[in-house]
Amino acid sequence: MARVYNFSAGPAVLPEEVLKEAAADMLDYKGCGMSVMEMSHRSSVFDEIIKTAEKDIRTLVGIPDNYKVLFHQGGGTMQFSAIPLNLKKNGVADYIITGNWAKKAAQEAEKYLKVNRIASSADKNFSYIPDCSDLPIDDDADYVYICENNTIYGTEYWTLPNTKGKDLVADVSSCFLSRPIDVKKYGVVYGGVQKNVGPAGLVIDIIREDLIRDDVPEYTPVLLKWKTQADKDSLYNTPNCWAIYICGLVFKWLLKNGGLTEMDRKNKEKAKLLYDFLDQSKLFKGTVEKKDRSVMNVPFVTGDKDMDAKFVAEATAAGLVNLKGHRTVGGMRASIYNAMPKAGVEKLVGFMEEFEKKNLK
Amino acid sequence: MARVYNFSAGPAVLPEEVLKEAAADMLDYKGCGMSVMEMSHRSSVFDEIIKTAEKDIRTLVGIPDNYKVLFHQGGGTMQFSAIPLNLKKNGVADYIITGNWAKKAAQEAEKYLKVNRIASSADKNFSYIPDCSDLPIDDDADYVYICENNTIYGTEYWTLPNTKGKDLVADVSSCFLSRPIDVKKYGVVYGGVQKNVGPAGLVIDIIREDLIRDDVPEYTPVLLKWKTQADKDSLYNTPNCWAIYICGLVFKWLLKNGGLTEMDRKNKEKAKLLYDFLDQSKLFKGTVEKKDRSVMNVPFVTGDKDMDAKFVAEATAAGLVNLKGHRTVGGMRASIYNAMPKAGVEKLVGFMEEFEKKNLK
Repeated sequence: MARVYNFSAGPAVLPEEVLKEAAADMLDYKGCGMSVMEMSHRSSVFDEIIKTAEKDIRTLVGIPDNYKVLFHQGGGTMQFSAIPLNLKKNGVADYIITGNWAKKAAQEAEKYLKVNRIASSADKNFSYIPDCSDLPIDDDADYVYICENNTIYGTEYWTLPNTKGKDLVADVSSCFLSRPIDVKKYGVVYGGVQKNVGPAGLVIDIIREDLIRDDVPEYTPVLLKWKTQADKDSLYNTPNCWAIYICGLVFKWLLKNGGLTEMDRKNKEKAKLLYDFLDQSKLFKGTVEKKDRSVMNVPFVTGDKDMDAKFVAEATAAGLVNLKGHRTVGGMRASIYNAMPKAGVEKLVGFMEEFEKKNLK
Repeated sequence: MARVYNFSAGPAVLPEEVLKEAAADMLDYKGCGMSVMEMSHRSSVFDEIIKTAEKDIRTLVGIPDNYKVLFHQGGGTMQFSAIPLNLKKNGVADYIITGNWAKKAAQEAEKYLKVNRIASSADKNFSYIPDCSDLPIDDDADYVYICENNTIYGTEYWTLPNTKGKDLVADVSSCFLSRPIDVKKYGVVYGGVQKNVGPAGLVIDIIREDLIRDDVPEYTPVLLKWKTQADKDSLYNTPNCWAIYICGLVFKWLLKNGGLTEMDRKNKEKAKLLYDFLDQSKLFKGTVEKKDRSVMNVPFVTGDKDMDAKFVAEATAAGLVNLKGHRTVGGMRASIYNAMPKAGVEKLVGFMEEFEKKNLK
């Protein structure tokens, strides 16, 4: 078996230890004689799995008691609809547009309420985070929405917007569990797990309890009403049991490895290796304003499409895979999530150095 | 490793061969250096997985070209909302109520259109399928809805309703791929895979193309509009990649083992073992009208709660697990899906015989 270094933006690399444990327990989970995929979601064995997963993510993130943790299907995209459906009161919401996902969330919200796009970095192809210290927040805004880390463009909010007292809703899919956050600053924090946490098909919502309401629009589908799952501890219907199980193993791995503080240190160390190289390189350059650089997703270009393609092809051959950038930015992108070891980034930087030597005229 | 015989109603037993292959490929899927859980849903490797899965289910079921196959998240429950949202035209639908799931589907549909409950077997605790040869189908009915196999009550339609020309929509979750069906008789056939096909978190819709429309109500969430996924071959957003992969392995297993015709033969043979025993037993009896008995889910009772509990406890100790019946029927239920070997049913029947000898006064 030859594992590669996988820089995919998501679904993405998972800890090898977790994969090994899942493989070992595949036919007989802890002596119960069956796979996690074969057990009833109402069984005591699965109950232990989902309850432990919730307990562990509460410990990891430091989730206050007045916030619910919900395990939903449908990914971030389903929550683009659920958010306005559940939070609509005055019928207005403020969205800050820092990339594709914030744009899609705003488009979907427009089905249900008036959307103000109060700031945007579209003018420079989303290569920065706008100043959000004094935005024209609507007096009636039911919430202020951000996408906290922008996977495609490689930007990350290092200061949360001043929402002037309105509830902040943040899509943290691509920085989920990458560093400590202060949950109290948010009304809703949610993330698709398939980037930094687990396999695709699960989104975790952390929601302040008073925002889980019964008076949603009557056309709200039963599973999009947060209260449906909140009242049933995410077991109103059969959940994505396998994804909850794998995420639970990842939570244990994070706890064992120093939690989010240590993850933050390691992630910044990995990102610094790459950014420091880019800042002195004569062939490669980063595409994002320095102050807004993501620690998770690092886009870079040579400025020459053929050279970019050559780099991606040679890197792939060297076992550094999924480095092709998103078409809207071009070039390359290295996603260096929690489970990417430092050795993977070191190998990438070493490879870039060699490539530069050979290809810089 | 000691595998049990798992009679769970769902999530449920999967073929051991499939679990072994998934475990073996966990860290390195076919030499690509990563797990299926770690690969981009846009990668060529995953593209091959999802395309092959679709091709194989088309072969297995004999799905005509004018039907789309869609892989959705959210389970059957999400489709309870999607069905009226996508099929609403005149604003009326006819539902046949044969158990909990049909009841829930009808309740949800009432948010979106007028629901006629044109037949029901509630009068006898859903222990039979009503005569559906001449029901009062509404002239304006946008569709007629059934739940084709009722997991909780153990009934199955052996004759489809006469819909008088209206489109039939069938939830086949608990009989999905258990026997050949004639897709042309349905407008929509859909099933959560977690009973007879794969791990929880995936529902497969087989939909006649003309029923996939653009003019759905404007408040329809983007992922509940079938056209969203139909236009993108189920990759509008990140799907439940792992579940699609496992279902794909199950499809291969079914094809290798004679397809749905052979599955039908084996399933009927297994069910006959159990029903024949029940019909002559002086301790146990089936709860369903003979003509409507399910081949997948077999509920039975002793008529004595303490005796039922004793049976379940002793069976569990003997490695025959998850036999406790649903609270609405009581007693026991043996779910004997495709992946339950004949040896498992033989062992159960043998155990029941022994138990009867010891406990019949």
